[in-house]
Amino acid sequence: MKIPESIFRKRVRKVQELMQEDGIDALLVLSLENYRYFTGDMRKQPRMLIPSDGGPYPIVFEEEKDEVERNTGLEAKTYRSLPEMLSAVISFLNSLGKDTPVVAVEMEFSTPAFLIERFRMANPHVEVVDAKQIVAPLRKIKDRYEIDLMKKAGKLADYAMDVAVDLLKPGIRESEVALEVEYRVRKKGAERLSFPMFINSGERSLWLHGMATDRKIVEGDVVLIDIGPVFGGYCADIARTFVVGTAGDDQKKAYRAYLEMQEKTAVMIEERKGEVTVLEIERRNEGFLRETGYKGLYVKGFVHGIGLGFEETPFPTIFPEDLREKIVEGMTIAIGHSVLSIKNVGGFRIEDTYHIDEKVRSFTGFEKDLLEVG
Amino acid sequence: MKIPESIFRKRVRKVQELMQEDGIDALLVLSLENYRYFTGDMRKQPRMLIPSDGGPYPIVFEEEKDEVERNTGLEAKTYRSLPEMLSAVISFLNSLGKDTPVVAVEMEFSTPAFLIERFRMANPHVEVVDAKQIVAPLRKIKDRYEIDLMKKAGKLADYAMDVAVDLLKPGIRESEVALEVEYRVRKKGAERLSFPMFINSGERSLWLHGMATDRKIVEGDVVLIDIGPVFGGYCADIARTFVVGTAGDDQKKAYRAYLEMQEKTAVMIEERKGEVTVLEIERRNEGFLRETGYKGLYVKGFVHGIGLGFEETPFPTIFPEDLREKIVEGMTIAIGHSVLSIKNVGGFRIEDTYHIDEKVRSFTGFEKDLLEVG
Repeated sequence: MKIPESIFRKRVRKVQELMQEDGIDALLVLSLENYRYFTGDMRKQPRMLIPSDGGPYPIVFEEEKDEVERNTGLEAKTYRSLPEMLSAVISFLNSLGKDTPVVAVEMEFSTPAFLIERFRMANPHVEVVDAKQIVAPLRKIKDRYEIDLMKKAGKLADYAMDVAVDLLKPGIRESEVALEVEYRVRKKGAERLSFPMFINSGERSLWLHGMATDRKIVEGDVVLIDIGPVFGGYCADIARTFVVGTAGDDQKKAYRAYLEMQEKTAVMIEERKGEVTVLEIERRNEGFLRETGYKGLYVKGFVHGIGLGFEETPFPTIFPEDLREKIVEGMTIAIGHSVLSIKNVGGFRIEDTYHIDEKVRSFTGFEKDLLEVG
Repeated sequence: MKIPESIFRKRVRKVQELMQEDGIDALLVLSLENYRYFTGDMRKQPRMLIPSDGGPYPIVFEEEKDEVERNTGLEAKTYRSLPEMLSAVISFLNSLGKDTPVVAVEMEFSTPAFLIERFRMANPHVEVVDAKQIVAPLRKIKDRYEIDLMKKAGKLADYAMDVAVDLLKPGIRESEVALEVEYRVRKKGAERLSFPMFINSGERSLWLHGMATDRKIVEGDVVLIDIGPVFGGYCADIARTFVVGTAGDDQKKAYRAYLEMQEKTAVMIEERKGEVTVLEIERRNEGFLRETGYKGLYVKGFVHGIGLGFEETPFPTIFPEDLREKIVEGMTIAIGHSVLSIKNVGGFRIEDTYHIDEKVRSFTGFEKDLLEVG
């Protein structure tokens, strides 16, 4: 299902309305996520200028102009070098005739710090503001085209987890599993993985972040796998925890506690949709773990938004102000983000990607009972 | 060949000397590249503080402390949440007892803008400076351990190009080639690709950047392939241009011109090692293309540094001040970075990774004559 051009135009009009309300003169798009959100087009290191009225103007290498204009239906500005690219932006800003034009730029994971620094140096008269205030309100509510793509990403996530579990046995290296899974899920249609798959085994299951190392899986390992396939630009996120061999009682108890926490979070969101905040979810889960015998082990950030961004608003581990965000209908949320790490027992995580629709539904459906594998 | 711990300690001592000379109190490491350079350890989203004396202190999630300390031989500071991570840094800075501590942070492609913004907001009394001034002087001169790893990355780059050429024929999609190449080169030992491989075919060979789309290769295509395998953290970079079917005279002429420009650049660097600047290379190549009948088609940025970073100092397309950098012995440089795009003919690029040693030698050795494939 191709997203019609009219949808992209509508998104641009909406962000321009927010720009006008907030007194922002232009949005400088530097991330593929937003470039894609506003045009449907795909390229490496996209740059685009969305004025508060008119445009948008993709800014492209001279020889790319024809194709970009064809793909986007927009008029592109061209450059042959970085200084020319910057001047394309600057001359547009000057054309506004304002003493202090206000430009929104993205301050995301994917926005390199030096770009913002250089932009500020080259434009000392410009007031730079965070683009989040005008972009997040749009992006956090998904339309049916986006939901359709996320469903497909969810199916790919389930498939990837199937492949991973089939491979999991003593003697195989984490990196071997990761390579096979990535290969097969891309072969099956995933555009890419939104982050290098992680498979944290043994002691490393306790880690906050993950990766795949050359460590060989051994009998008795707790193995935590987290995968984020991308379809048509949209991410799904799934995590499961396995035991290689037979799970001990401590491991079963921890797994059950995590699963209960995840399921109760989904119920809480469904029951109090439109009013429950991220902070309330955090507090309730911290309390739940305390009462379940895991006092002090709660790691903050149990839910995060997901969509074109693997992690997007609300994204409380990075942006504390997102704790105030309400979970409302139309959002897509990963539930089960933070690890429950218990020394000498293992690290546990069960994560799925949910659509906050009339009901709260998961795009991912891989088995949730604790699997003993190998 | 494992890099001995003493080498990492020496690198830290050297950067501390530069910090003391420049009046910098601490270096905040946020990139995997620098974390690896100073510790040899590998993790996702590493954070580390290097004071101008003592330390360094990796800053890790509580449950990761034991393993990180074992891997690095360093004493780690721990956190359980982002605010705690920030306070670990802040309390260290306060312990210096200075009114305005000076902290160097990385402003690289991989440093997210928001991290710097948040750090500044949380530390208004801190003077933030770019870490480049103290890190680049070390990293741009490679030691024998680094050269050894880059040689291995170079061999993997040649292998990857072999795989790509074997697959290249009418009917295959760019994305299919890219997936197979990545799979096989990782299977062969590459840790990852430093950027998603690009294979720009037909009209898209003219592009500045690249990617792999679902486009099917057709007879007559110019196909530009660029691959950057990573081994032990170190990158190699290779690019070649092919014609599917029979090359026309225009295409042969453009290819020859590019190849001559690349080879002459290597000779120029060898003859004037230690004194030639990036700017001189740029000027000479722009002149060369003008005289060869390609006036106005020179794209800036013919060489860039390479190592732990796929693109590192000197990196003139992003950091214009790097045009003043001299190419000196010990550097590793990719030559042939910019595309020669000629409308209705094709885009051409021949890139290799060189070591500026006694002689100027390439780590990559794939065939350089124009190959007609398919």
